[in-house]
Amino acid sequence: MTTLSPTLTLAAELIRRPSVTPEDFGCQELMIERLQALGFQIERLRFEDTDNFWARRGTEGPLLCFAGHTDVVPTGPLEKWDSPPFEPSFRDGYLYGRGAADMKGSLAAMITAVERFIDHHPDHKGSIAFLITSDEEGPFINGTVRVIETLEARQEKITWCIVGEPSSTEKVGDIIKNGRRGSISGHLQVKGIQGHVAYPHLVDNPIHKAAPALAELAQTRWDNGNAFFPPTSFQISNIHAGTGATNVVPGEVDVQFNFRFSTESTAEQLQQRTEAVLNKHSLDYQLKWTLSGHPFLTAEGDLVAACVESIKAVAGYDTELSTSGGTSDGRFIAPTGAQVVELGPVNATIHKINECVRSKDLDTLSDLYENIMARLLS
Amino acid sequence: MTTLSPTLTLAAELIRRPSVTPEDFGCQELMIERLQALGFQIERLRFEDTDNFWARRGTEGPLLCFAGHTDVVPTGPLEKWDSPPFEPSFRDGYLYGRGAADMKGSLAAMITAVERFIDHHPDHKGSIAFLITSDEEGPFINGTVRVIETLEARQEKITWCIVGEPSSTEKVGDIIKNGRRGSISGHLQVKGIQGHVAYPHLVDNPIHKAAPALAELAQTRWDNGNAFFPPTSFQISNIHAGTGATNVVPGEVDVQFNFRFSTESTAEQLQQRTEAVLNKHSLDYQLKWTLSGHPFLTAEGDLVAACVESIKAVAGYDTELSTSGGTSDGRFIAPTGAQVVELGPVNATIHKINECVRSKDLDTLSDLYENIMARLLS
Repeated sequence: MTTLSPTLTLAAELIRRPSVTPEDFGCQELMIERLQALGFQIERLRFEDTDNFWARRGTEGPLLCFAGHTDVVPTGPLEKWDSPPFEPSFRDGYLYGRGAADMKGSLAAMITAVERFIDHHPDHKGSIAFLITSDEEGPFINGTVRVIETLEARQEKITWCIVGEPSSTEKVGDIIKNGRRGSISGHLQVKGIQGHVAYPHLVDNPIHKAAPALAELAQTRWDNGNAFFPPTSFQISNIHAGTGATNVVPGEVDVQFNFRFSTESTAEQLQQRTEAVLNKHSLDYQLKWTLSGHPFLTAEGDLVAACVESIKAVAGYDTELSTSGGTSDGRFIAPTGAQVVELGPVNATIHKINECVRSKDLDTLSDLYENIMARLLS
Repeated sequence: MTTLSPTLTLAAELIRRPSVTPEDFGCQELMIERLQALGFQIERLRFEDTDNFWARRGTEGPLLCFAGHTDVVPTGPLEKWDSPPFEPSFRDGYLYGRGAADMKGSLAAMITAVERFIDHHPDHKGSIAFLITSDEEGPFINGTVRVIETLEARQEKITWCIVGEPSSTEKVGDIIKNGRRGSISGHLQVKGIQGHVAYPHLVDNPIHKAAPALAELAQTRWDNGNAFFPPTSFQISNIHAGTGATNVVPGEVDVQFNFRFSTESTAEQLQQRTEAVLNKHSLDYQLKWTLSGHPFLTAEGDLVAACVESIKAVAGYDTELSTSGGTSDGRFIAPTGAQVVELGPVNATIHKINECVRSKDLDTLSDLYENIMARLLS
């Protein structure tokens, strides 16, 4: 039996804890134990059903923060997994288990990186911190949002933040996310007048009224994006109208849509432009908006430079900056003024059956984190 | 207690039988008994779960046929009725009960009209017939369709057909239906590529693709109608797409629509024009058509003339010819070459709670039927 590296050993210990959102199942205490041994000050921040902690070593700036989450998404059907999702399994150079890639592997790599860095630089510059939540995969109410509120209330500022989200596509570090698009959703109800199809003069078909407006929204070019962001995209996810009866014109149609938007548009602009289209088509409608997150961007700076250089030095290849993909807790941290980058393992299997990560990638990731710390804090 | 007229007495007896489709509950035997006494030859035609009969008096042409149904639609919530739906109740000049207007009142009026007519004209010209089904409110598979098949197979031809459907709006005979629009439905599935809203380059949103095509179909003027028919109308009755999740673009959208069409368009033309629009928008789709009935029209002739004159003579006012409203079994009879007219009581309460008919309207209706017979067969 091969001896596992400290990073893989810790990753396996974390995977063994079935911490489906919002459960933490002792993952955070495992991390806290290791950080306390390194001289971190620990602040446990439980909000409602969610465990979070803030750990800091040092009192001076600049402050480099590792951010991440101990919760994982549900396993899906257990019988479809080749090995039980909460029993870490090393096979063919991969570590299998729920959370291996998203993001217990990153958490382990962060801890071991900090352990080596402090061993070599016990009197490092500035401060190191961990912002860990068990709510990232859930409703994001009692997690990072509330920890950031706590820090902001006492004006404790993060300078640089590395989020351990699985940013990579082929090999670890090939892509880092230096921003994310914003996300805003709309729930639209267009009203008409219900009636029998045989009496068209007595009905006002809401599907007929909505169709040209929806066609126009779908064809609108909202912006052209920029060097960092693709153009803002609009997608209708759900549309429902009708009683099931084929001879009844329904009284309303229900539509849900979502914008993923670049920094070239604001949420307010998209709302106004959407409503202008609906008004132009003289629709009788109700529209309820839900803002999931403003876009954020760390275009350049020490953190991006350190990441790019470390990946070149440790892994030997150039990384690519990207703002594509879904949202992450980075959106809650960036508004404080922090530089934010997401750097983690390959995301090919996240949220899927047989989630896994290449074992040596986690060791490389730990080296990357250590190398970045050395560039910023030594 | 006032003595009821023969028509109202028979209508009440028919209402007392709870003949919800496809049940006949003895209504037809009650009619058959009366017709046998008048010398009608009876042919009971039960197909599957449906009772029908064909009754004929005379062997020569021309043949005047009374057509109708003994089945009724369900009552809906019993507690909402002011009197039990299957207990005929005479109140304030109205007869209340399920089927009073649609169409047991008409059946009673037909029987008593024929009784009086034969009493006065025992040796009338041509033949009189009844085509009665218990399937009109249902799937129309084992009712009039199969009786007509039986007649066609032996080349027995109806010259004139009076369908007892409640054609009137304010007073009995103010409107007669001398045709009906056709009805054809389409079930459309437009295919796309499912995916996450965050990766718009990987999805092909079927709602976005369908919207401009549906808008074009909704705005199309299919024809301008004619002297007898309003323009053909297109209505989308149901549209469904989406998993419920707001971050997933669905893989397909499901649309149901219906045409009510005039004699200015054919079912084939509407199908071709619809598909041309879908093809123009380059949709990947499946489309399944269901033809409920071709339009029919009895523009002029002895039957329409007899109806118009009888209404003027008996009721004292002019009638209006109309082809509006839903479908009726007339659509199955007209293709045989018969002249077909629908003439029955006021339809304001049909299929509703507290269905009713003005009592004296049924006596007037019986007089109308008798007067029409006199014009055509005496």
